[in-house]
Amino acid sequence: MKRNIYLETVPISEALSTVQARLDRTALVKTEMVPTHEALGRVTARPVYADLSSPTYHSAAMDGIAVLAEDTFSAREDAPLSLSPDKFTPVNTGNALPDGVNAVIMIENVLMQDDGTARIEAPAFPWQHVRRIGEDIVATELLIPSNHELSAYDIGALLSAGIWELSVYEKLKAVIIPTGDEVLDFRDRPTPKPGQVVESNTQVFSALASKWGIEVIRHEPVPDRPEALTEALKNALLSDAHIVVMGAGSSAGAKDYTRSVLSELGEVLVHGIKAMPGKPSLLGIASEEFGSKLMVGAPGYPVSAVICFEELLAPLAAWMSRKVLPARPQVDVTMTRSMPSKLGMEEFLRVSIGRVGDSYVATPLSRGAGMITTMTKAQGICRIPANSEGINQGQTLPASLLVPRESLEQTLVVVGSHDNTVDLLADALMGRDTPIHLASTHVGSMGGLMAVKNGACHMAGTHLFDPDTNDYNAPFISKYLPDADVVLINLAIRHQGLIVAASNPKNIQGVTDLVRDDVQFINRQRGAGTRILLDWHLSQNDIVPSQVKGYDKEEFTHMAVAVNVLSGAADCGLGIMAAAKALNLGFVPLARERYDLLIPRQHLSDPRVQAVLETIRTDAFKERIQSLGGYETDLTGQEMQPGMGLPE
Amino acid sequence: MKRNIYLETVPISEALSTVQARLDRTALVKTEMVPTHEALGRVTARPVYADLSSPTYHSAAMDGIAVLAEDTFSAREDAPLSLSPDKFTPVNTGNALPDGVNAVIMIENVLMQDDGTARIEAPAFPWQHVRRIGEDIVATELLIPSNHELSAYDIGALLSAGIWELSVYEKLKAVIIPTGDEVLDFRDRPTPKPGQVVESNTQVFSALASKWGIEVIRHEPVPDRPEALTEALKNALLSDAHIVVMGAGSSAGAKDYTRSVLSELGEVLVHGIKAMPGKPSLLGIASEEFGSKLMVGAPGYPVSAVICFEELLAPLAAWMSRKVLPARPQVDVTMTRSMPSKLGMEEFLRVSIGRVGDSYVATPLSRGAGMITTMTKAQGICRIPANSEGINQGQTLPASLLVPRESLEQTLVVVGSHDNTVDLLADALMGRDTPIHLASTHVGSMGGLMAVKNGACHMAGTHLFDPDTNDYNAPFISKYLPDADVVLINLAIRHQGLIVAASNPKNIQGVTDLVRDDVQFINRQRGAGTRILLDWHLSQNDIVPSQVKGYDKEEFTHMAVAVNVLSGAADCGLGIMAAAKALNLGFVPLARERYDLLIPRQHLSDPRVQAVLETIRTDAFKERIQSLGGYETDLTGQEMQPGMGLPE
Repeated sequence: MKRNIYLETVPISEALSTVQARLDRTALVKTEMVPTHEALGRVTARPVYADLSSPTYHSAAMDGIAVLAEDTFSAREDAPLSLSPDKFTPVNTGNALPDGVNAVIMIENVLMQDDGTARIEAPAFPWQHVRRIGEDIVATELLIPSNHELSAYDIGALLSAGIWELSVYEKLKAVIIPTGDEVLDFRDRPTPKPGQVVESNTQVFSALASKWGIEVIRHEPVPDRPEALTEALKNALLSDAHIVVMGAGSSAGAKDYTRSVLSELGEVLVHGIKAMPGKPSLLGIASEEFGSKLMVGAPGYPVSAVICFEELLAPLAAWMSRKVLPARPQVDVTMTRSMPSKLGMEEFLRVSIGRVGDSYVATPLSRGAGMITTMTKAQGICRIPANSEGINQGQTLPASLLVPRESLEQTLVVVGSHDNTVDLLADALMGRDTPIHLASTHVGSMGGLMAVKNGACHMAGTHLFDPDTNDYNAPFISKYLPDADVVLINLAIRHQGLIVAASNPKNIQGVTDLVRDDVQFINRQRGAGTRILLDWHLSQNDIVPSQVKGYDKEEFTHMAVAVNVLSGAADCGLGIMAAAKALNLGFVPLARERYDLLIPRQHLSDPRVQAVLETIRTDAFKERIQSLGGYETDLTGQEMQPGMGLPE
Repeated sequence: MKRNIYLETVPISEALSTVQARLDRTALVKTEMVPTHEALGRVTARPVYADLSSPTYHSAAMDGIAVLAEDTFSAREDAPLSLSPDKFTPVNTGNALPDGVNAVIMIENVLMQDDGTARIEAPAFPWQHVRRIGEDIVATELLIPSNHELSAYDIGALLSAGIWELSVYEKLKAVIIPTGDEVLDFRDRPTPKPGQVVESNTQVFSALASKWGIEVIRHEPVPDRPEALTEALKNALLSDAHIVVMGAGSSAGAKDYTRSVLSELGEVLVHGIKAMPGKPSLLGIASEEFGSKLMVGAPGYPVSAVICFEELLAPLAAWMSRKVLPARPQVDVTMTRSMPSKLGMEEFLRVSIGRVGDSYVATPLSRGAGMITTMTKAQGICRIPANSEGINQGQTLPASLLVPRESLEQTLVVVGSHDNTVDLLADALMGRDTPIHLASTHVGSMGGLMAVKNGACHMAGTHLFDPDTNDYNAPFISKYLPDADVVLINLAIRHQGLIVAASNPKNIQGVTDLVRDDVQFINRQRGAGTRILLDWHLSQNDIVPSQVKGYDKEEFTHMAVAVNVLSGAADCGLGIMAAAKALNLGFVPLARERYDLLIPRQHLSDPRVQAVLETIRTDAFKERIQSLGGYETDLTGQEMQPGMGLPE
């Protein structure tokens, strides 16, 4: 197999400056005249001088009478003055002042008399209630400098100044070419077969680019054939676009042709950045014959592609179009878990953020570049510098926010075991008048207990069974959080069992079947309540883990277990009935258990926690739980006491 | 004259809650299905569950060979293992894993041998370099809750999950109806006569609304006739819009019909808010027959209209469409001037902000509701609470930023006398590779000296002539800033003179003509260097101010003086030649003077100040100054010493 190689990878800042030093933005981005009222967000190519003054005349700022102030100087409350009709003119707000007057008296302060005179009890001072000519804008003065991005207010000022059109830089245009034999066009609403993926990076790019003021044209997907790729790139470069992006194929694998295709039509300046995700990014400039345009090779993994778009393409596009790219708002967050990071690589760590007590806490999400949901679930991104080997639990560092800062105040942080009823809760909380975002991280029941202990969350989902006391959760709290003042609220009683293929072809009836040679199991991770439950059932049946094929294969959620069964990767796994039902799989009941919410008492008065309690105590919510199947709601919303166990 | 009355004015928060309590947003804003790739910024009307898993199969995460990890456990560096061809399958990144394997070994770590075996020196662990089925998304799991505004990342996740379309709330639509007999349509590119204004608020609204995700339809301007206004409102309410805005006519004047027109077709809930600008705002709900839609009466003054749009309409629209309206970034600023404020009214004070030394300083701009340029010149807005009587110089308070926070670091704060060369400088600074925004406030030369003294600016423009020493600026610095370590840099020598009407019809030849009965003068404000110059020339000619008609009429800039002459409001005023030339007026030279930049020495190393010095020392900039007319650049960019005076 032939291998491409990376150029020397460079830090992001160096990648940017390398391109800026070589790209002639003035030649590439032309100027054009546009109507003022369509110029929002465009950047002035020349200074703009006012054509009209505003106001263009001395203007009454109130309804009343226009007078010469000097005529009114003698008016006093105890010596009112009657102005004869030739000494005043009635005016409405906005009227031009007649010649020879210089003040307006508000109508409230004027008594019109039967003889036609106007009686006043106070003098007017010159220019009182008058908007003088040019008060706002003086014709010929500099209104807007060049290289200025036009705001909504600027549009108003320009029109007021009689500027009907103006010279601005072209709007940037980019073509994006998705590539790959495995890529399916989302427009075909495909059902992917193994080895196929639905192409979506182009749409993420289009959506991001619309915020950056870039128009995006999507090319249809091009298969991994060098001639076809070159042809597509050539056509895109010969269009009126300023930027051409090739999606995927930017790494150094056998089918990664982007590097060589870009080299054919121009020069590759950067291949590989010292960042993860995002490393396999390419930047180049097309040869003169192809317009010296910016060429970008974006990685195929969705998060890598996002980093390439946001950290490379966006700043370059802003620079090309003379815009200031606003930085995301930042907050300082306290990390709830240690996270090592590779020395020499800047890492973009997606984190779930919420305000717990007085500080913002951040829980790292999965680091996989292929996981777009880490971007949708994250409230922020922590940049771990290249010279850092990672961050420690409890360390405070800045996070760039992906959501408005104020939504952090409306974010409920739940860490612990996952259950489908938590998703129901998440949806229900968003339906409130003041929606609450539920940020959940799935680390298992024990992980949830530790998160509560560390002040890292508002509540934890937990379903830890203690065989010695036949009780749930409370014994573990006594053991691991002896000093914590916490409350247990039941969310639901749920049914755990063996998730098996539809109609149970291998006839699996209980844990004793897990020792069979033809039964492949899929397990949950260490610390998960479900795994503890499994271990207990195994020990009850005198089975040791090594007898169970697949005991060492771990998944982090019930749904992931169910998917393993659906795909045939495993024959069964322990999980909740709702997960089996969701994927139309078979379910062999094994146990009922309590799934509780563990809440530090100090958070009970938090409006977000209050909202949770209110919500789960409604009949509507209990009905939604029941409709999932495999749940009972007899205890839902009630406070659990030690020793309560589980009612029959 | 008939007078309308306001309802009791209410605070903004009360205005909002009053409408929210009465408007049925669920009935008004329907839901619809939209294609996922067109759903950016839309809000989910229902929870979205994944249709596909992602990946949909166990996928190779690297180029290499796929193996069963258990087959490789014996491999060591000192005991390499050769896998026979039936024990491995070559795979590229993204390929589906064949049945019966569970790991990928990177191609870099495999030696393919001639006999077709693959030699490895380390074992693979299970699921190494494999993206497992459902790793990112598990089919049927909750992907996005309801009432969630879709981000670019969400679009990617939805397409990956096989969601091709989804149920969202309608995009809000608003009709805006400009009103008023005096209003000219900007589309006609009009030349306003006295009493007429170019309508621009609709375009400010459209531009703002586009950021809020609201589609705006502009009605053509409607004259101030109740029947015409009612007809226009009725048609707009019967369209598919959710919001109808009537522009202007919302106050309580004789021609302010909006209140009564809204009442005819619905109910007015709010008339008048305790805020300035923005007080004459109207909110109402149309009657059922007209769709129970939101009706807004926006004030006519542009800044009042902006406040109405941003503080009333935008939050209501966000609430209607279930969006979070992101707040502007805030910084704490130190006020450079005291500013009284009316008790009982919240004031939106536009301020010019820059970082001077270690703190952000804010200088209030004009408060007039009619001045749209206060919005274009401001970097931020300070909200002065209703219960405050104002703010004191040196007080620190939060400002909401109108510009990205990082542009404050690129903002040069200039306070003092105004000159057209400062505008040239502003434009030139924006043309730099890293543009610098020049924020200038015109308070006259003495005001500039005080601003330097108070640490309120990076530099001040000053042209103070001292007759005793025949020197410029330095004597005033010795007197008023005796302890300050400052530097004077000349910007230009300029010509001051009497600005007169074109071809000088009144044959004004010097200050002695200012005592003539037929000569109306327009003066500059107290503390302006130009006024000091005038006073000196008057005293030289034994003229006292009371002999000059119009001595007490003040303007703040040369251009404003020139506009007074142009409009015939005055026959002449003292000012610079460039102002006369800009408006094609006559000019009677009176004096040459030095216009210097006063810079605290500590700021000389500031990159923004450095940029100024670099810029003004270029030949290109000096040529731009000279082309204005009435300037000499012999001293431009040079440091001025006490006693230097003015070379002939």
